[in-house]
Amino acid sequence: MAEKRPFDVLNAALNNNVLVKLKGDVEIRGTLASFDVHMNLVIDNGEELKNGELKRKLGTVLLRGDTVVFVSPA
Amino acid sequence: MAEKRPFDVLNAALNNNVLVKLKGDVEIRGTLASFDVHMNLVIDNGEELKNGELKRKLGTVLLRGDTVVFVSPA
Amino acid sequence: MAEKRPFDVLNAALNNNVLVKLKGDVEIRGTLASFDVHMNLVIDNGEELKNGELKRKLGTVLLRGDTVVFVSPA
Amino acid sequence: MAEKRPFDVLNAALNNNVLVKLKGDVEIRGTLASFDVHMNLVIDNGEELKNGELKRKLGTVLLRGDTVVFVSPA
Amino acid sequence: MAEKRPFDVLNAALNNNVLVKLKGDVEIRGTLASFDVHMNLVIDNGEELKNGELKRKLGTVLLRGDTVVFVSPA
Amino acid sequence: MAEKRPFDVLNAALNNNVLVKLKGDVEIRGTLASFDVHMNLVIDNGEELKNGELKRKLGTVLLRGDTVVFVSPA
Amino acid sequence: MAEKRPFDVLNAALNNNVLVKLKGDVEIRGTLASFDVHMNLVIDNGEELKNGELKRKLGTVLLRGDTVVFVSPA
Repeated sequence: MAEKRPFDVLNAALNNNVLVKLKGDVEIRGTLASFDVHMNLVIDNGEELKNGELKRKLGTVLLRGDTVVFVSPA
Repeated sequence: MAEKRPFDVLNAALNNNVLVKLKGDVEIRGTLASFDVHMNLVIDNGEELKNGELKRKLGTVLLRGDTVVFVSPA
Repeated sequence: MAEKRPFDVLNAALNNNVLVKLKGDVEIRGTLASFDVHMNLVIDNGEELKNGELKRKLGTVLLRGDTVVFVSPA
Repeated sequence: MAEKRPFDVLNAALNNNVLVKLKGDVEIRGTLASFDVHMNLVIDNGEELKNGELKRKLGTVLLRGDTVVFVSPA
Repeated sequence: MAEKRPFDVLNAALNNNVLVKLKGDVEIRGTLASFDVHMNLVIDNGEELKNGELKRKLGTVLLRGDTVVFVSPA
Repeated sequence: MAEKRPFDVLNAALNNNVLVKLKGDVEIRGTLASFDVHMNLVIDNGEELKNGELKRKLGTVLLRGDTVVFVSPA
Repeated sequence: MAEKRPFDVLNAALNNNVLVKLKGDVEIRGTLASFDVHMNLVIDNGEELKNGELKRKLGTVLLRGDTVVFVSPA
């Protein structure tokens, strides 16, 4: 198993901007505020994107881990 | 792991308005009355939205956790 | 964790009318006769609805918990 | 938790006619011959329905529990 | 719980013809050679059907249990 | 339970050609190099097929078990 | 069970280019930086592809294991 672990990416991204792709073509962009072992994520200043366009501002949003496709630090 | 935990957002949102996005393009807006570790949620004065429009008033509604995409305090 | 728990809603709804939304745009309306921890539900005098219209009367029907989206007491 | 339990419906329906709705708009009608805790069901004299029309006669058929949406005694 | 159990149907069908419906409108017809508790199935002389028509001959094929919708002895 | 077990098919197919159908109408053809209890598979000289036509050559490819629909030795 | 194990492919691919196919027709190409037993993957210099075309550059990206269809070393 690799020394570096996938969740290290989340730890390093805390309080920084991330792009999160969810199942069903929804994307959320904002500041990663917290996460847990299920990959549940809290995003502050969250914006919902649809096809790359801003759909609406959500403020703080809790994303359920099992709907996450990927998380990419900005 | 982060000190702040994702479920803190639910705890802080109790008795306040939330927007919940469910799988299958359904959204519910209302007051968060209770939740559990499976992210089952009870919403009071719940309204079902479709494409951002009010579809119908549901009153109290129990949302099954595994259909939740995100929860955002209003 | 909240003092009130999501399943309290089911307990309070026993022998009363509920609307249940299932995955795949099916809805069932009727009297909640019983439930278990998996959210399996038994509905008496159940009616299947499609797009809000009565599709057929089912009488007693056992709904599998993992197809439930939400349950709303009438 | 309710005194009556959801699986009581299956027990009472043994050797009687049931309508089973499966995920993916398939329905099976026939005599409930056996079931287990996973809601795996055996139907005798089973008929597959599509949009309410008889599609074909299957005789005995084992239905996998996790594809079940609902079971309704006839 | 019923005395007869759903998996008895698989046991009785060993070395006999079965029709297996899988998720995603695929069907396999052939001789049931083996199965396990996950409902993984091995079919010998398997034929893949699409809309009831023979699509291709597969010979021996291992079907993953969680894609099974139903199994019907011929 | 059957004496022959479904995974025997994978064991017998090691280092031989297999056709693997995945969820979402993707198929992979190549040499089965290894597998585990989750039905994760490694295919060498893998080719991705779409509607029976060669889409691209992948070389070695690790297939995640829970996306497997069936595995058929060539 | 095979002596070679599926995860050996990931171990051998560390710090090398991989192509990852995800559910929902998304593909990610880049350098495999880490992985875990859930097949969560971290890709560095990640590029998102749609129908084989570059859609956007993501830099580092954490892919959730249960959305992975396959991983192929370049």
